[in-house]
Amino acid sequence: MGGERIVTAAVLIIGDEILSGRTKDRNGGAIAEHLTSIGIRLKEVRVVPDDEAEICAAVNALRSRYDYLFTTGGIGPTHDDITADSIAKACGVTIDVDPRAEKLLAENYARRGLALTPARLRMARIPAGASLIVNPLSGAPGFRIGNVIVMAGVPEIMQAMLEAVTPELETGDKVLSITIAVDRPESEIADVFSAHQQRYRDVAMGSYPRMRDGKPVSDLVLRSANADHLSEAAETLKAALGV
Amino acid sequence: MGGERIVTAAVLIIGDEILSGRTKDRNGGAIAEHLTSIGIRLKEVRVVPDDEAEICAAVNALRSRYDYLFTTGGIGPTHDDITADSIAKACGVTIDVDPRAEKLLAENYARRGLALTPARLRMARIPAGASLIVNPLSGAPGFRIGNVIVMAGVPEIMQAMLEAVTPELETGDKVLSITIAVDRPESEIADVFSAHQQRYRDVAMGSYPRMRDGKPVSDLVLRSANADHLSEAAETLKAALGV
Repeated sequence: MGGERIVTAAVLIIGDEILSGRTKDRNGGAIAEHLTSIGIRLKEVRVVPDDEAEICAAVNALRSRYDYLFTTGGIGPTHDDITADSIAKACGVTIDVDPRAEKLLAENYARRGLALTPARLRMARIPAGASLIVNPLSGAPGFRIGNVIVMAGVPEIMQAMLEAVTPELETGDKVLSITIAVDRPESEIADVFSAHQQRYRDVAMGSYPRMRDGKPVSDLVLRSANADHLSEAAETLKAALGV
Repeated sequence: MGGERIVTAAVLIIGDEILSGRTKDRNGGAIAEHLTSIGIRLKEVRVVPDDEAEICAAVNALRSRYDYLFTTGGIGPTHDDITADSIAKACGVTIDVDPRAEKLLAENYARRGLALTPARLRMARIPAGASLIVNPLSGAPGFRIGNVIVMAGVPEIMQAMLEAVTPELETGDKVLSITIAVDRPESEIADVFSAHQQRYRDVAMGSYPRMRDGKPVSDLVLRSANADHLSEAAETLKAALGV
């Protein structure tokens, strides 16, 4: 009968295009959903520009604080792709063309009848000591160094890399959730809801307002790793609200 | 003939529901686009949970580093809405029901034939010294304290507050951008593109790959506050690529 097993993570989204508003990030939300489903708790997300000092500072702040750090973006073939080099610097290791990554790229380009040019070979630059994360879509791999998992920014490729790396992640107790949709504005359920939170301190309770057919709905979300407590808290809340 | 006028900002998104993946954030991208359009440079985005210590730490890290900090989320009537109190704590000021905010709420609820209950009055808690940001949609105001602008999490209300506060923001030179879509994979334009970046150092150049009808397209994005340099760099890049 041990206590709750908690595994934490952060996400670092790297890219000027997100900060300019040109590209709307979808990776943060997709990683959040995936981590929740496998029992890893996402505690923080940051977005930083394609700037070595900014990437290094964020990588070091986040990898030391959480069990895992997932990064997206900046591992392509062009000059603005500086993630791999920045992470090598943050981790204090060298970086060079990795023979394993070169082989993956060479095979992928050969299959497509294309040459492995110097620009393409740039995508084989991997920090020393990292393991590779396969990319079934376009060949160029992601990598993992220590607790830092480095993935592409293109959502479809990021998703494939996230699935590829998942079997080797340590996971903790899953946070389960129950949502109770109440046809009343938040301000009308706030007192009952707050008293309920006081009563069940190990069940996190949040309220999220939305409109349905022009009328206010409050989604009351209860979350806990303890299925019994969660279920009891949800049933007693429904009774207290008469829903 | 002064130098470039640069005004910077960060965004802090507050909410467990974003980190769990239940709600997909749209505010970060919307604020990014708006700030770019008015001449404020978004340099960092963070997402943190509904936790006082986390909110305080992030607020203090970001408000001291950038000209503006925009926050979204956590200013509703329920017990999990702790943004206003956390920001008062971060800024070292007291917080109480604000007579101006109470008046706005009282008028709004009276118009809808509803009572200003204690739960609703919670949304009138405003840190000492803050100015209010009107909320034409649901009455409960946002606020500004120093360089920190505190807005709702519901996207439509956030957008209305962002527009309401915009006239009083200081802005700098707008970063202009030109996108050149090239029907080639990034790896085939990388060398020319990198050389071009070396030639025009005050024009930031990024490449963003996508697929169109199953074929790779590279969106080459050039950004600069100097319209003449930007235009020249774009024209010479097109010539160099033969597009």
